[in-house]
Amino acid sequence: MSARTLPERAQRAIAECRRIAVLSEEPDRTTRRFLTPPMREVHALLRGRMEAVGMKVSVDAAGNLRGFWQPPNATGKRLIIGSHIDTVPNAGAFDGILGVTLALECAEIAQELKLPLPIEIIAFSEEEGVRFGVPFIGSRAAAGRFDPALLMLKDADGVTLEGAIRAFGLDPGEIEKAAIDAGTLGFFEVHIEQGPVLDAKDLQVAAVTIIVGQSRHTLTWTGHANHAGTMPMHLRRDALAGAAEWIVAVESLAQRTEGLVATVGHIVVEPNAGNVIAGAARVSLDVRHADDAARKSAVEALLAQAQAIAHRRNLALQCARQMDQQAVPMDERLTAFLAEASEAAGLPVKRMPSGAGHDAMVMAARVPTAMLFLRSPGGISHHPNETVLEEDVAAALGVCRKFLERLAAEVR
Amino acid sequence: MSARTLPERAQRAIAECRRIAVLSEEPDRTTRRFLTPPMREVHALLRGRMEAVGMKVSVDAAGNLRGFWQPPNATGKRLIIGSHIDTVPNAGAFDGILGVTLALECAEIAQELKLPLPIEIIAFSEEEGVRFGVPFIGSRAAAGRFDPALLMLKDADGVTLEGAIRAFGLDPGEIEKAAIDAGTLGFFEVHIEQGPVLDAKDLQVAAVTIIVGQSRHTLTWTGHANHAGTMPMHLRRDALAGAAEWIVAVESLAQRTEGLVATVGHIVVEPNAGNVIAGAARVSLDVRHADDAARKSAVEALLAQAQAIAHRRNLALQCARQMDQQAVPMDERLTAFLAEASEAAGLPVKRMPSGAGHDAMVMAARVPTAMLFLRSPGGISHHPNETVLEEDVAAALGVCRKFLERLAAEVR
Repeated sequence: MSARTLPERAQRAIAECRRIAVLSEEPDRTTRRFLTPPMREVHALLRGRMEAVGMKVSVDAAGNLRGFWQPPNATGKRLIIGSHIDTVPNAGAFDGILGVTLALECAEIAQELKLPLPIEIIAFSEEEGVRFGVPFIGSRAAAGRFDPALLMLKDADGVTLEGAIRAFGLDPGEIEKAAIDAGTLGFFEVHIEQGPVLDAKDLQVAAVTIIVGQSRHTLTWTGHANHAGTMPMHLRRDALAGAAEWIVAVESLAQRTEGLVATVGHIVVEPNAGNVIAGAARVSLDVRHADDAARKSAVEALLAQAQAIAHRRNLALQCARQMDQQAVPMDERLTAFLAEASEAAGLPVKRMPSGAGHDAMVMAARVPTAMLFLRSPGGISHHPNETVLEEDVAAALGVCRKFLERLAAEVR
Repeated sequence: MSARTLPERAQRAIAECRRIAVLSEEPDRTTRRFLTPPMREVHALLRGRMEAVGMKVSVDAAGNLRGFWQPPNATGKRLIIGSHIDTVPNAGAFDGILGVTLALECAEIAQELKLPLPIEIIAFSEEEGVRFGVPFIGSRAAAGRFDPALLMLKDADGVTLEGAIRAFGLDPGEIEKAAIDAGTLGFFEVHIEQGPVLDAKDLQVAAVTIIVGQSRHTLTWTGHANHAGTMPMHLRRDALAGAAEWIVAVESLAQRTEGLVATVGHIVVEPNAGNVIAGAARVSLDVRHADDAARKSAVEALLAQAQAIAHRRNLALQCARQMDQQAVPMDERLTAFLAEASEAAGLPVKRMPSGAGHDAMVMAARVPTAMLFLRSPGGISHHPNETVLEEDVAAALGVCRKFLERLAAEVR
């Protein structure tokens, strides 16, 4: 075969993503949850592509589609490349899936270059957490971190995770066997940034240094529901007004703290009627920072501020911790290779943290892991307008090529 | 018959309210919407009571139960006394219905005193606006202010107002005939305060001077939904944070403005997920003041503040006016009689505005109207804990007796 150019590969990878976006649970929009019928169609499409590059293809018990290519001159451990193929509701065409179509291009590039590097592609079955409320089901299984208790989770239709796996023709009893073995050199994921940082700096790609830690809390403010017309202001115990004062304080602290993001994105008010003073308000808090100590101190400050506001307003306040996820650094050596590869590909070396969780975060607990971010124009993701620039995809493939060469030199 | 004492009458009126509270659409809680089956049971119970005091009973086409008593010595126009018999969901036992059971006691008192005052009792079918989203259906009809376009309103089950009236065995074509005629002296309503003012001042009753005007608006803040982890603080357009800043400003202005109440009680956020920056937030604004100019200037200031906040935060803002209800003063002469009656009954004369709307507000557009408030212990209403004190009900009946005597003297 005549070698394709990187722009041609970029075009093909993008076209495949757009083709796969049509495989959806819903007409006219992309929604593809864990092990739903369109995921079977994605498997069929990707299986064909994997087989075309000479890979041995299987589906593990967690529903991950896996293709393995063993080069004739192989001497060492395998490199796993991959990302996820599930989506959020009404998704874009590139979040996750681009990391899989690019993995296929990487495999072909490695073959063209006759690199002695065994390559496994994993198309993870679940990362977004939409169907069962718990993310990373695919990578948890691959990383040997799947807790069998999760099999009892139920989706919105009452189907258990166990039942969904069986209905897909898989054996939940085999999930342990999905775990990658010691013959693994590392894991590499390419993913769109899903944020505006690269776009704002007019950069195409970045090596991810760390996946930031994340705290999630739910705060419930309880006052007293009263008639909006008959209750004078000074006698009110307005739960929404208290929560609102705190929401402004959350934003303000985050604006003043370098590297911190803090978000209240969810609010439920009772009774939520225009002519009734709110008796209760339940709000979410999402706090992220690359430095765990900075994150924890921000959370403490925000919860203390909430208590002070509640006390002054004679409101009751309950705080429940939902998540306390430590920051996960990427492997230093592989990330240095990735930075070198960027330079070798003629691109500025940008390193940045990831504010979002990724399969790479889960895999990093098991194997050395590196991650490459690709510019998200406008910072848009989880939205039909999510896109990528062809030249950025070609640039990313250029970095991938240099990265694969560097790794092959290591295992040679 | 031997005359009952006022405390005996108070006991009976309270007991009747408690008995009627059981007539509900739901087991174990009081919910009685317009023309639902339990309303028929209330009609049967009240019809028996009206007939026992010699009244001629009918149900008008709007579902109002009406009893008319013409004393043998009558010389003038009728006094209408009444309140509503529908409730909010999970209601207390006294809001509205107490004004009907007390009207029955008033009719008996007038008979005992042989007052030459024709009395009509109206048990209004609808005041709360729960079933069709529009309040005062009963009093609109009685006041000759019913817009036939309302017949097309639908309830949550898709039943039209017209259909509901027919299903109750009434003829919607006859609603015009429900309007009271020129032979009416005035309308008088006794109602619980539904607020904490009398309780805080340890007063039993008050003459209502005015039903305050009310503005309702819906404000829709639109920013941009983004990933809570990947979007730096300085690039966010967080609709909830903007709305929260304004909610605090609403409360603050109302606290600084004498006689003003302003409430944000309803909020809906999109997409309302803990890990997504809010792209849109829709909030209600409810502003009330006895002085229409003060209310309007407060609304203008709050909407201007919202625009300023939206502009600074690069959010789009839409403001839609839902309601602009002028303040409705009670009739000066009748209210003066009510104040005299309080004094004659040995009670301090308290005059106060009503922050809530009432049937009296609608009836005042047609006939001279007066309204008596009765203490709400703890200011609690629209809640199962809503209650009244027996001594307050007896005191209110004492005022009613003097008021009836004063009116009878007028028509004699």
